[in-house]
Amino acid sequence: MTAAALRHSGTHLIADLHGVARGKLCDAGAIDALLRQAAAAAGATIVYSHFHAFGPGQGITGVVLLAESHISIHTWPELGFAALDIFMCGQAEPRRALALIEASLAPVSSAIQELPRGYSVAAQ
Amino acid sequence: MTAAALRHSGTHLIADLHGVARGKLCDAGAIDALLRQAAAAAGATIVYSHFHAFGPGQGITGVVLLAESHISIHTWPELGFAALDIFMCGQAEPRRALALIEASLAPVSSAIQELPRGYSVAAQ
Repeated sequence: MTAAALRHSGTHLIADLHGVARGKLCDAGAIDALLRQAAAAAGATIVYSHFHAFGPGQGITGVVLLAESHISIHTWPELGFAALDIFMCGQAEPRRALALIEASLAPVSSAIQELPRGYSVAAQ
Repeated sequence: MTAAALRHSGTHLIADLHGVARGKLCDAGAIDALLRQAAAAAGATIVYSHFHAFGPGQGITGVVLLAESHISIHTWPELGFAALDIFMCGQAEPRRALALIEASLAPVSSAIQELPRGYSVAAQ
C-alpha cells in the first residue's frame, strides 16, 4: 500500500445512541470537550471545532474537524437521542473515540455501522 | 407519526466521489459556497460553516452545520477524491443537495450509501 493509498483509506462510524440522559445532551461546552477528548484518544489531530446550542434544554449540533476528517454530533435531549459520526483516515483509531464517547454518554442502546471510505481508489 | 418522531427521523447520505478535477478540490471558498448552495437547494437552514485548507494545492476539510444536521466534505486533490456526507432530518431533502454537488464537482464515478438514522426510537 502506498502512502497516498494509506492516507486515502478511512473508516466512518455511524452511531445512533438511544436512551442518553437528557442533561448530557444539551450542554454544548461539555460535548465539545468530550469530542475533543475522543479525538485525542483516537490519535487524531484537531484543526477546529464548533458547537451550536439551539437554546436552554434543547439540542446541540456540532463538529470537531480533524486533519484525519471529523467527528460530528447532533442531539435531541427530549428523545434521549444522539446521532454521532466519526470519520477518520490514516493511522487514527475511530473505535477508540467511539468507546470514550459511549462511556461518557452511557446510552441504553447503540446502533453502530462501520463504513469503509474511498477504498475503490485506494485499490487502483 | 408525531412531530417529535418526524424531527427525529433523518437520512444520511455517504458519498465517495472519484475522478474529480484537481482544481475543484483545493479551493476552500468555492467549496464553502457550493455546500451552502447545496444546503439551500435541500431546503435546509444553515447555522454555521467552516472550511480548513491544508495549504496551496492541498486538500480541504470542512462542514456546513444545519438546523437539520450537517454537510461535510474532505478532499484529496492529488487523488481526485472527495469524501462527502449529507445528514438531514425533518423536511429537508438531502438528495437535492447531493445532486447539486455532483453536478458541480462532476466526478467520473460516485459510490453512494443512504442510511436511515434514529428510526428505532422514532418507531417507539
